Amino acid sequence: VTSDAPGALMRAEIAEQPQRWLELVQRRSALDAAAALVTGRTPSSLVYAARGSSDHAALYAQYLTQSLLGVPAALATPSVSTMFGRDVFTSDMCVVAVSQSGASPDLVATLESARRRGAATVAFTNDAASPLAGLADVHVPLAAGPERSIAATKTYTAELLALNLWLRAVAGEPADATERSVAALAEHGREVIARSAELAQEVAVSMVHADRTMVIGRGYSVATAREAALKLMETCSLAASGWSAADAKHGPLASVTPGTPVFCLVAESTGRDSVDALVPDLQARGAQLHLVGSDPGAAGSLAGVLPAELDDALVPVVGIIPFQQLALELALLRGMDPDRPLGLSKVTRTT
Amino acid sequence: VTSDAPGALMRAEIAEQPQRWLELVQRRSALDAAAALVTGRTPSSLVYAARGSSDHAALYAQYLTQSLLGVPAALATPSVSTMFGRDVFTSDMCVVAVSQSGASPDLVATLESARRRGAATVAFTNDAASPLAGLADVHVPLAAGPERSIAATKTYTAELLALNLWLRAVAGEPADATERSVAALAEHGREVIARSAELAQEVAVSMVHADRTMVIGRGYSVATAREAALKLMETCSLAASGWSAADAKHGPLASVTPGTPVFCLVAESTGRDSVDALVPDLQARGAQLHLVGSDPGAAGSLAGVLPAELDDALVPVVGIIPFQQLALELALLRGMDPDRPLGLSKVTRTT
Repeated sequence: VTSDAPGALMRAEIAEQPQRWLELVQRRSALDAAAALVTGRTPSSLVYAARGSSDHAALYAQYLTQSLLGVPAALATPSVSTMFGRDVFTSDMCVVAVSQSGASPDLVATLESARRRGAATVAFTNDAASPLAGLADVHVPLAAGPERSIAATKTYTAELLALNLWLRAVAGEPADATERSVAALAEHGREVIARSAELAQEVAVSMVHADRTMVIGRGYSVATAREAALKLMETCSLAASGWSAADAKHGPLASVTPGTPVFCLVAESTGRDSVDALVPDLQARGAQLHLVGSDPGAAGSLAGVLPAELDDALVPVVGIIPFQQLALELALLRGMDPDRPLGLSKVTRTT
Repeated sequence: VTSDAPGALMRAEIAEQPQRWLELVQRRSALDAAAALVTGRTPSSLVYAARGSSDHAALYAQYLTQSLLGVPAALATPSVSTMFGRDVFTSDMCVVAVSQSGASPDLVATLESARRRGAATVAFTNDAASPLAGLADVHVPLAAGPERSIAATKTYTAELLALNLWLRAVAGEPADATERSVAALAEHGREVIARSAELAQEVAVSMVHADRTMVIGRGYSVATAREAALKLMETCSLAASGWSAADAKHGPLASVTPGTPVFCLVAESTGRDSVDALVPDLQARGAQLHLVGSDPGAAGSLAGVLPAELDDALVPVVGIIPFQQLALELALLRGMDPDRPLGLSKVTRTT
């Protein structure tokens, strides 16, 4: 298989994720410097600025910041800096940019605005030579290596894990405990990749003619729902959307028509009841229902694809893998090249 | 036409919006009390908590708070209170609940959490006897009258306008200037309703067999994009999504297939360039393109449906109307009843 074969890049980048996580946790100095910035300045709130897949990692971090540290966290609206020309940050905030390329002009403008106001700034990027890396007080490298497929896979899970490791360091977790948990996570990651390689193909075959799909989570897994939908949009041109179970009830469920494949993310104990509660509604609509969790006894090909003994906060890191593989397999089945979706480029220069 | 005829409720509720706005601006005492709470306490940030359509009004308010007042504003994650049991607010915040019913348990939990931490609280609801109205330091009634169609229309524009009037009062705009602008807005609203009644039918006929659609805005109009998509999902079961132009480029554009109706919101001067910049990409994908703006010379049925001489910050209040009417007409064309979408209820009790 050469890198020119459709999907070869994406397949290789999915496979190398666990190894990249092990490398990431070795970058203690950057993680510790970013943690010291927070423990030293005790910001009143954290604000995350990101776009696309990175925005889903930021959403995850918004939940984790609040649940783990009890500190308010928000997602920035970059157009306030770029379109409205307003500086809205305060010196007691910490503004965090998350970006694979580190080059998005609207995130650069957001960090510049934060610096003008004296806020602490951190950048998580995969390019140490990028504008965001140069601007921030502390740059945390994602250690994911070059990502060549257009669809982000390994940089997304690297972002999730880097944000997780950083917030755990802020919370005071000892480095050796963190390293042990990442070693276990990498092992789980390898198993999930092996299990879902086959299962994703099965699911892809079942939805080869699908036009739309929906992914539903709650809490941390809302990030997984949105990222899964984005992968399926960009690689397969599906009309896909990802929702919190709480929001799905306010209208989006009405777009589930008979036969629509719907994925319910139930691997996390927190929020699972909320997702489960939608199952009767989804069945009544005739959805083709897929539970994605850690109970092989439940219905559907992906019901047992995830490990049972993982902290809720780490589930998203492995929980996106079955969808990365589904996006890959479904695109190939449909004769598309997931590495080069029509008309998309790797770095999106939004002002 | 009786209220049992399909869509009769929604049609009547769309039509009464301008009159409701005129009534809303007369409720000065509640608006002034809510403004005094902010000017008296000068909160370091505003946090909006909402779900569904109200969350789109909250998104609008998040932008307006920052652009008009220069104060940081965020959207709350209610599950932090309900699922994770964390109090993350601080006493120098102002937490604002936006809810038609005022009864959503997760928003109640969010306001309770805010009160435990000593934050200022405001509730915008359409029911003065609701739990949220009772909990908040100040309750601002939406003055929309009972909404009987499942699809929210008049309560949504009442939320937008109430939030707009409140933030303008905080900014110190004199009441008589505000009243004059709302009188002009109501006049524009009547014209938009009259113009779009016919135009929406034309667009509905053109997309009667559509399975998916996309709506794209930037800045304030991102709220319109999301709300328009929600209306089309809930009343017509379309796979619809609403995006910021900045996010659409990060993957969602790949789900635009030949013939997909795509609506570009170009009535606002701020952000318009960003939306316009996507047009060549959309044309290259074979989208059925609809500009929605105030230039009747541009392409498409809705290109001139909105007034030219309106402040950007008020455009969303009238900008959603063509989509309310499109949702109504398209549902009727498809033999559906937009007043009673299958399996949806008016008050969503999410914990």
